[in-house]
Formats: sequence, C-alpha cells, structure tokens
Amino acid sequence: MKVVIVGGGAGGISTASNIREINKKIEIMVLTRDDKVAYSPCAIPYVLSGTISSFDDIIMRTPEDYKNKDIDVIIGAEVTAVDSDNKTVTYDKDNEKIVIDYDKLVFATGGNPFRPPMDGLDLEGVFQIRNIADGVKVQEYAKNIESALVTGAGLIGIEIAFALKELGLKVTLTEMMPQVVPRSLDKDMSDIIVRYLEMEGIDVILGHPITKLIGENKVEKACFGNDDAVDAEMVILATGVRPELELAKMAGCDVGRWAIIVNDKMETSVEDIYAVGDCVESTDLILGSNTISHLGTTAVRQSKTLARTITGKKSKFNPVLNSMVSKVGKLEFGAVGFTSSFAQQNNIRPVVQKVEALTRARYYPNAKPMDIKVICDSEGVIIGCQIIAEERVAERIDTMTLAITEELTCFELSNMEFAYAPPVSMVTDPLVLAVEEVSKKFN
Amino acid sequence: MKVVIVGGGAGGISTASNIREINKKIEIMVLTRDDKVAYSPCAIPYVLSGTISSFDDIIMRTPEDYKNKDIDVIIGAEVTAVDSDNKTVTYDKDNEKIVIDYDKLVFATGGNPFRPPMDGLDLEGVFQIRNIADGVKVQEYAKNIESALVTGAGLIGIEIAFALKELGLKVTLTEMMPQVVPRSLDKDMSDIIVRYLEMEGIDVILGHPITKLIGENKVEKACFGNDDAVDAEMVILATGVRPELELAKMAGCDVGRWAIIVNDKMETSVEDIYAVGDCVESTDLILGSNTISHLGTTAVRQSKTLARTITGKKSKFNPVLNSMVSKVGKLEFGAVGFTSSFAQQNNIRPVVQKVEALTRARYYPNAKPMDIKVICDSEGVIIGCQIIAEERVAERIDTMTLAITEELTCFELSNMEFAYAPPVSMVTDPLVLAVEEVSKKFN
Repeated sequence: MKVVIVGGGAGGISTASNIREINKKIEIMVLTRDDKVAYSPCAIPYVLSGTISSFDDIIMRTPEDYKNKDIDVIIGAEVTAVDSDNKTVTYDKDNEKIVIDYDKLVFATGGNPFRPPMDGLDLEGVFQIRNIADGVKVQEYAKNIESALVTGAGLIGIEIAFALKELGLKVTLTEMMPQVVPRSLDKDMSDIIVRYLEMEGIDVILGHPITKLIGENKVEKACFGNDDAVDAEMVILATGVRPELELAKMAGCDVGRWAIIVNDKMETSVEDIYAVGDCVESTDLILGSNTISHLGTTAVRQSKTLARTITGKKSKFNPVLNSMVSKVGKLEFGAVGFTSSFAQQNNIRPVVQKVEALTRARYYPNAKPMDIKVICDSEGVIIGCQIIAEERVAERIDTMTLAITEELTCFELSNMEFAYAPPVSMVTDPLVLAVEEVSKKFN
Repeated sequence: MKVVIVGGGAGGISTASNIREINKKIEIMVLTRDDKVAYSPCAIPYVLSGTISSFDDIIMRTPEDYKNKDIDVIIGAEVTAVDSDNKTVTYDKDNEKIVIDYDKLVFATGGNPFRPPMDGLDLEGVFQIRNIADGVKVQEYAKNIESALVTGAGLIGIEIAFALKELGLKVTLTEMMPQVVPRSLDKDMSDIIVRYLEMEGIDVILGHPITKLIGENKVEKACFGNDDAVDAEMVILATGVRPELELAKMAGCDVGRWAIIVNDKMETSVEDIYAVGDCVESTDLILGSNTISHLGTTAVRQSKTLARTITGKKSKFNPVLNSMVSKVGKLEFGAVGFTSSFAQQNNIRPVVQKVEALTRARYYPNAKPMDIKVICDSEGVIIGCQIIAEERVAERIDTMTLAITEELTCFELSNMEFAYAPPVSMVTDPLVLAVEEVSKKFN
C-alpha cells in the first residue's frame, strides 16, 4: 500500500510517523512545498524574541531522519492536481511536473494566512509568519528598524508583538474586534492581558481595523478608517489563516462552511482520501455541530486517529473543546470551551462567575494572583473556563477540559479532591473557589 | 441551636466558619487545647526552613476574628468528658472545670503524634511537631546544635528534614520501611526523591527502624537494631499520627479499625454527634471500603459537608483518593489513588507504566524532566498516578484525580484534549504519553 500525504506540517508529518510506528511495510510519501519539516510553528515567536536561541532549535527532524524511518519526504514540492478517479497526484518540483499514484491520499494542507483587504500590502516590510523562512525574514528586517505594528490580536499576534517588543522595537498591536483573543476569552478576561501588554510598553489599539498601509517602497505608517495613523516600519499580518481547500475540492471532497468535511475516522467523502489538521472541520463537543480547531494539538491528535484508520485499526477522533494556553512574558493564559459571549450567540444562557485567587498559599512567598472565570449552562453544567496567572494555568485548563468532557456540573466539581501544599496551591484550589462561587448562583 | 465543636484544627475551625456562612443565628462554640487556631500546619516546615519568614505569617485568624463572626473560640480548653445522654461536654480551662450543654456536637479531635516504642524518647532534644508551639521549640533548639535526625519519611518527615538541612544542620532521615513516602509512592518513584535528598546532602537510611536514643540528659545518638548509630543532637519523630478517639468512645460513637465511623453526611452513630478530619474514617473511592485520609484538604472538604448537614441542607461527602502533593527544595512530587504495591495487596493486578517526559517543549529553555507513573487495573481503568518534576506536578495530579473519579480508562484519556504551548508543556502532554504507553500493554 502506498500512502501519499500532501503537507508537511504537524498533521501531515505526524500522520506519516504514526503510520510507520504501527506498520513497517506501508510505503509513505510526504509532499511539502516548505523546505523544512517537523518544526514547531508555535515556537516561532519565542525564537523571534530570543528566548529560544535559534530557529534550528525548533526543527525536530530533517527529511533525512524520515528517510531513516523509511518515510519519503519530498520538500519544495507544490502539488498542483489530484485525480481521485485514477488515484494520482501531480506536483511540481524543481520546475519539473511529476505524476505519482496513491492507494490512500491524505490532505494535510493546512491554511494560508488571511490577507485582510487593504492598500499597501505589497510594500516592503509587510510580513506574514507562516513558517521558519518567514520568521528568519522578520528577524533580519527587525534589526534595522525602530517601530513595528502587528495586526490581529489572537494568540500568534500577541506572541509576536511581545517578541518584537523584546527585541527593543516600539510595538503597536491592533485588532478590529474590541478585545484581544476574542475566540477564547471574554472581554473582561482579555482586558487583563491588554493591561499587561500596555504595562510592558506595547500600544494596544482595539476596535479599529487598519484600512491602509502607506510608505515609499517600504511601509512607514498604518492608517485607520478615522484617518489616525501610527508609525510602523514593519507590519505583521496576524489575521488568521484560511484552510487551503483547492486540492480537496479538485478531488471532489465535500467541503463545509469552513473546511473539508471528515468523519470521526478522518475519512473525507471520497474513498481512500483522508484529511487532518487546519484544513478540516471538527465537531464541537458542546454543540455537536461543526467547528474549526486550528490547534497543533488537534492536528497531532487527528494524525493518531488517521494512522489507526489507514492501518485498519479501530479509530475515533472525539469532538473538540479547543483548549488553549499561551505564555507572553510572565503572563500565562488559557481557556477551554465556550466564552460567555459565544454561549449567548448559541442560545445558551450562561451562568458566569469570575474569581480572583492565588497560585500558592496566601502566606507563601511569590504567591501570584490567579483570575478564573467559569461558565455554566442554565443547569449548572460547566461549558467553559478561562484562567490567567503567572504560573500553573495550563494544567488547570486540562482539569477543566476533562470536567467539561465528562459533563460535570459546578456542584459536582466543587466536591472534588484537589492536591494541596502551600508552595503550589491554596488549601481550597482556585478552581474549587470558582465553581463554589458559581454554584451559589443556582440556589 | 447550639453547636459545640471539639478541636480547633482545619476540620473544627472550618466547620465553624462554614456553618456561620450559611446561618447567622446558630450559636457556635469551638473548644481547643491549643493556644492558636486557624493556622496552616502544612506550612510549619516552610517556616522552619526560613522560606516563610515567621510563624505569625501562617496564622490566618485569631480567636478575636472569630468573635467578630460571632463564633466563640475557647483556647486552652481541654475537653475531659462527653455525656451524650444529657448532651453535655466538660472541659478544663485555667484549672477550672466547666460543663456546657450542646444541641449538636462535633468531634474534630484530630490525631496525636505516634511515639514509636524506643528508649530515650524523654531525652532533651527529642521533638514531635504537632503545632506552632512545637515548631518554635524546634527552631530555637536548632540554633545551638549541628546534627539532627528525623525519623519517619512520610511527607512531613521529608519536609522537616529538608528544612533542617536548609538551616545548616547535618541531617539524617530514617525510615523503617525500605522507601520514603510509602503511602503514596512506589519504591521506583520514591527513589528519585531519595537521590535528590542525598544530592542535597541529607543522609537517608531506609529499612532500619531506630531502636533507641542515647545521651546524657540531651540526646546525642540514635541507634539502629544492628548497633549502628548516628550522631543526632536533635531527633524529630515524624512517625505519623493516631486518631484521638477517647471522647468519641466516651460518647458511644462507633469506632472502626482506625477511627470514628461516619456516614457521608459526617454523622456518627450517635444522634446529634458528628465528626470530621483526622479522627474519622473515609470511604476509599476505588475499593469502596473504609480508609484513613489524613489530609488538610479532606478535613476542609468534610467541614463543608458537615456545615450543610447541620444547617439542614442536602449534603454528601464523596469517597476519597488521597490525592497529595509536596514540594521539597526544587522537587515537586504528587500522587493520587493506588500505588502498584497497594493494588497488589488488594488483589488488583496492576498494569503499570513509567515514562520520563519534559515539563516544556524540548527546545524551550529550562525544560525539566518529569517522571510519571500510571497504574491501571486489568481492564485499563486508571487507578493511580505518581508524578515528580521541578514544576507543574500538582495540577496534573488534579487532572488524574478527576480521571480516576470518572473511572476513565487509559485508552479514553489518551484521546483527551490537552492545552499546549512550548513554554508550558509538550505538544503531547506528559500525561498523554504515559497513558498511551500503558495502553500498549493491553494490545
């Protein structure tokens, strides 16, 4: 059997490795237009900032490493056509057109950075950060300038803005929505992050889209609709990605509102064609309807399911909650499930509580504030949680992910056992404080 | 209604506060032989070590604070008799015998340090650490000596040994069992802690009980059965506590193998008498039989249940898993559920996997090793977990506590979503690595 995988990102390369781990005989080929594979795109901001010393550090494996595992990784390969009737894939490499056949085809085509409609996008100094090559370009360009603007205040936007600030640039972060991280946080929680970024010297401009970039050859200023403008010798577009669907459409795969439709075995609507990662839709655990989960962890987990499917083992990819975490400077923030506003948009009346607790016993040195917001439905079932603190956020998000997955109520979680020691928690865990408080709203 | 609470530790004082929070009218009296209330005994080792600067810092509230909440805390009160027929309690205070009546009586009598049978326990320099007064005495005595021995290598023993080492003493830690923390950890995991303690300069002697202490007036040496002896100008007995049951027996309450029997509302067998904390037995979540849970968190959670019982609200204390965590120097270690050896003792054939992971992405600065051991029953249901690392242990224990409570299998947890960012975790969480590995043993 020959499996051809289109895309060398987390979804594609993990699928290859996972198939090989289960089965030594299957022929596996990965086609990627990138010149590197198996690196961690989530780490690019931390290399930019200098926290991680080199882009080389975040490359886990080379194509040669995969060769040793008998996985054929073809870099610089741009797939141009798929014929699902004849089961062939056509790609360009080194100006040559090559046609290969497949028994099983995997789309792990990921997404392309969205370019918001505005004038001046072609000016020198305007970047998107998709891969290491982009990271290197931004790092070089940053050496000769003083001001930068990042537009789009999702996770990546915030992380890159902070990284550029660490490099000594005067940084402006802009977002057309009235808050940062709108996908995962409610405004009241996101405001904590804004205050931190501002305290660190980053200008944050919310609720105003950039309408054009101006400059002579090089970008110099970014303009808002109201004729305000800010200096920006570099502009980073961090305005999200759009799934790349061309090949899947060409192959006849069903595509939903956002991306390729797959079932819980990662099968598309076309026989012997599968898909994973940013280019597919997932099922929302709470609503049961389709959603998008642009997370590396989702791609990696889907690749495990797909490897089992392709090798004929029992497989099932579960619905997602989009649990996330990030760390920017000292601040760690994470979220899982629905925000209060997303719940309302979906006709769920959220019952919400925000508490401020501490990361250690009150009397223990360096206890830090921990802000927690818990969101329940009208029956008390937990549907969302957001946490911000300088330590110990990520694993609490995981506990809440499990609580939401198991459909626990706030009452049930209030009674749960939590481990305690003064250096690492409060005697009543911050999560318990939060669910106890929200429980009172149901009396 | 008048509620009399015997004992001013975590269970007693929290019961008082929780009742008051629900009901402003109930008359509440707390009798304690201690001269302080509402302090955190778990924090005593950290004051000893100097990490927390003063014993005053770990006192949360004074009897006057409780007066302001209309809770009558009587310090220095030694309860000598209980008459459950006439519903009276007799106590000594300032050499006076006082008899009071009650409508509801709560035993929160805790435990007394166990004094292992050996000669020389009455020598000067031999201590137990039960309360702040004991902590102050040890702190003072430590100023004029050079060597100390701690016997009993449970949590408290290890924490105190480390604290005395921090004070510059030459410290020996001894344990009659062949490992440290035998209640919560398997030997292979506990050996990691032993190596750390030894690296920090503490002598650890396992598998040899101390048979006698010798010295002229003051303790000078501790002797083992084999005639070996070690210098010890101070000896701390950290050999566990035994529930204090005298009063409960006097009142006619049923007592089990270890402690007072209560139902899930914290009611004893005698009408209008309740009990919480170290003096009661709990139900083991996995076995369904009775067990002992000497944890401050258990006492605090039981006090919430009891306050609801006494105020006529729906209440239920759930079975326990004894989830614990501690931090000694840089090392954080925690556990929940069964050890592999405890499972075997209870006729469960454990399926076990130990993995070594990292606390952050491999390329991220200061990623630390994380050792995880997962224990499943023969069906793959998770029944225990032990984790050791320099960071981010406690909350992972909480996630595993929830997983065990929900009776998840290792296969189910392998599929769960975990939050990821390079500074705070691996793309596949250490817990997922561990449950994936143990899952393979069921193929």
